[in-house]
Amino acid sequence: MSRPLCAGLVFALLAVLAIERGSRPARAGAPEGIVGPQYTPDGKLVRPSGYRKWVFLSSGYGMSYSESASNSDHLMFTNVFVPPADYDYFLEHGTWPDKTLFVLEMYGSESKGSINRHGHFQTELMGLDVEVKDAARFPDKWAYFGFDAAQPSSEGLSPGKNDCWKCHDQNAAVEHTFVQFYPALLSVAKSKKTIKEGVKLP
Amino acid sequence: MSRPLCAGLVFALLAVLAIERGSRPARAGAPEGIVGPQYTPDGKLVRPSGYRKWVFLSSGYGMSYSESASNSDHLMFTNVFVPPADYDYFLEHGTWPDKTLFVLEMYGSESKGSINRHGHFQTELMGLDVEVKDAARFPDKWAYFGFDAAQPSSEGLSPGKNDCWKCHDQNAAVEHTFVQFYPALLSVAKSKKTIKEGVKLP
Repeated sequence: MSRPLCAGLVFALLAVLAIERGSRPARAGAPEGIVGPQYTPDGKLVRPSGYRKWVFLSSGYGMSYSESASNSDHLMFTNVFVPPADYDYFLEHGTWPDKTLFVLEMYGSESKGSINRHGHFQTELMGLDVEVKDAARFPDKWAYFGFDAAQPSSEGLSPGKNDCWKCHDQNAAVEHTFVQFYPALLSVAKSKKTIKEGVKLP
Repeated sequence: MSRPLCAGLVFALLAVLAIERGSRPARAGAPEGIVGPQYTPDGKLVRPSGYRKWVFLSSGYGMSYSESASNSDHLMFTNVFVPPADYDYFLEHGTWPDKTLFVLEMYGSESKGSINRHGHFQTELMGLDVEVKDAARFPDKWAYFGFDAAQPSSEGLSPGKNDCWKCHDQNAAVEHTFVQFYPALLSVAKSKKTIKEGVKLP
């Protein structure tokens, strides 16, 4: 075995060891390699990979919960994905299993480009917001992490009941997830009667 | 066996027989039940099912290729999906395999609803546009079909070089597909050099 290849293997082994795997084994039905959230030894969330082959829930354009508006004509798209096994669990139960991962992609937009003349299409990845349900690791169960377009790991927002946590806890339709903005799941939550009391639906 | 159950089984059998299956067997890596386009005996395309678990390519909001603008504040979102095996083929080759299916979902939108104040989120399914690559069935290789929110089959647009066909043939970046509006695939097409000559990219 040549030295560079050998060094590469050692590096790869160290990289694998550096990732403290979640306590859950790969779940039946989950695509290869999806085993829930993974953390670095110092407690950062490893950037989820392969999520473009997960299940798409919905997208929004320029969504904002704040009263102050942006006047930009190039607002961001948000695309939301969950692992297939978590999606299947939701269809059956109307709730999320422990170790659920939500990936919200932020994409820049353009209006006039190629043959498009009106409306907006997606252009380039700006970053990810990731939400994790992990009761063993987080006393408040759900935790929130931000990644720029290429960042490999994220230490996340201040632990516990930060502003994201509070807003999701108060306003999200099911547990900490804004199912009211995912039409295909909203009907499931209604039929399973898992929508939180007092939440305002569209 | 009770009569109603027996009748149900006969009905189910007839329903299965009524679907003339595509010539391609289920492909390795394709989720169960995805075998390419299926047609009724009278040549209609059967509504694709299960596409919400296919691979999401991108979404647009209010996109229009026409110079005349709509003034509506409730434009439609379009979400595009392809079967995982077709997506994997594209990543490898930068082109689409025969029997590729494209599903473009149209969703209504709202701006103010639940806690959202600005921008737009998706509300209800309005219909599907489906594009099929099937060289054995269509002399012009690609064909175009429309479905309303629940329609089980579609006879499609006039066969051959209709307006959809012509626009896709002239303006779509790769074969008949608007890869210029799917950022994750555009970089693949660039590296594989499969973008049609003369096509205007964003």
